[in-house]
Amino acid sequence: MKINVRKPILSANDEQAERNKVRFKASQLMVVNVMASPGAGKTSLIMRLLENIPLEFSRGVIEGDVASSIDADRIAAVGVPVTQINTGGACHLDAFMIDRAMDDLELSGPGYLFIENIGNLICPTNFRLGETADMVVASVPEGDDKPIKYPAIFAQADMIILNKIDLLPLIDFKLQAFTAAVRAVNEEAPIINVSCTTGEGVDTAARWLLQKNMGSV
Amino acid sequence: MKINVRKPILSANDEQAERNKVRFKASQLMVVNVMASPGAGKTSLIMRLLENIPLEFSRGVIEGDVASSIDADRIAAVGVPVTQINTGGACHLDAFMIDRAMDDLELSGPGYLFIENIGNLICPTNFRLGETADMVVASVPEGDDKPIKYPAIFAQADMIILNKIDLLPLIDFKLQAFTAAVRAVNEEAPIINVSCTTGEGVDTAARWLLQKNMGSV
Repeated sequence: MKINVRKPILSANDEQAERNKVRFKASQLMVVNVMASPGAGKTSLIMRLLENIPLEFSRGVIEGDVASSIDADRIAAVGVPVTQINTGGACHLDAFMIDRAMDDLELSGPGYLFIENIGNLICPTNFRLGETADMVVASVPEGDDKPIKYPAIFAQADMIILNKIDLLPLIDFKLQAFTAAVRAVNEEAPIINVSCTTGEGVDTAARWLLQKNMGSV
Repeated sequence: MKINVRKPILSANDEQAERNKVRFKASQLMVVNVMASPGAGKTSLIMRLLENIPLEFSRGVIEGDVASSIDADRIAAVGVPVTQINTGGACHLDAFMIDRAMDDLELSGPGYLFIENIGNLICPTNFRLGETADMVVASVPEGDDKPIKYPAIFAQADMIILNKIDLLPLIDFKLQAFTAAVRAVNEEAPIINVSCTTGEGVDTAARWLLQKNMGSV
């Protein structure tokens, strides 16, 4: 019974995601779906990456939150076009929300659109948005076992950021254990160590996006 | 249309939650529903609290995870009865899962049962389990704005733990901003600062549970 209810909803979303993909391609936008736990540093990372994108490209952000516009306000303060989606209670963004947000944002490329998904390691995995790449942000204080506990999101990642790497000397986090746990479900995605506080690793992450973009758009 | 589909599901869960409540009361168990983001330190906190419960009480844990039995293994290693629930993809525990886990656990009181919910600040709010108290665990590295971004879970908390307080000198986290954000949605729940690494504050948290239990069971 549950499957009968869920299946058409997922398909409708997937169909809209395909339309979004066509729209993004026509606009020459590379679209990055940024997913993480609450407080892993998604907004800080997006702001750091925006700084590292060459000026010939356009830039935009869609901010997803259950409530508040704190993150969108931070993005707007640095002069980057941003649209806030508040989901009320929903635990993920969906392709229809992105379609409406794109109408509002009026962004055209060539350029980069970052979508900050809801802080959640489970729900966003089931809803494609039409994105070019899935970026999963883990952070050192969360512990090295997250890929074992939340395998689906790490499995679908095109790129994994390990944020708050500056806290590594202070916290019991084993880099090797984290890498092994990722590799058990995802053999290919690069794992890039970053600190949004010190800026370490941000250039490497930005370079990956630029290279990926040249291949895809 | 969505409401028509969701309503009966929620009611069936609520009815089972009421049956669980009766069962817990008959068994003289205080049941704590522990909710938090991934990596906030739920398991470490439960282990610390277990140490602080007087020996005349029975103790048990139900561990909820999307995948793996890492947390249940940690609990079992210290000799406390534990049952693992793996939800597959589901982002929250529900009252039926707890009923089945109780059959497995065979715990009778007077005592304490900790239920570690799925690491998620959104989904668990909609599913009552029959618990005596809701404990929300926030942690310093997640940032002081979480109650603004995820208001529902902080609103329903009977007790809020701010974990990883030992990292406070190293991270830009304003205690006053966090407290103000909690108080905007929840005027009553105590906010207890804890470090599961140093043990700071654990006795205060345990004392609150013991007092609450005397009032409720």
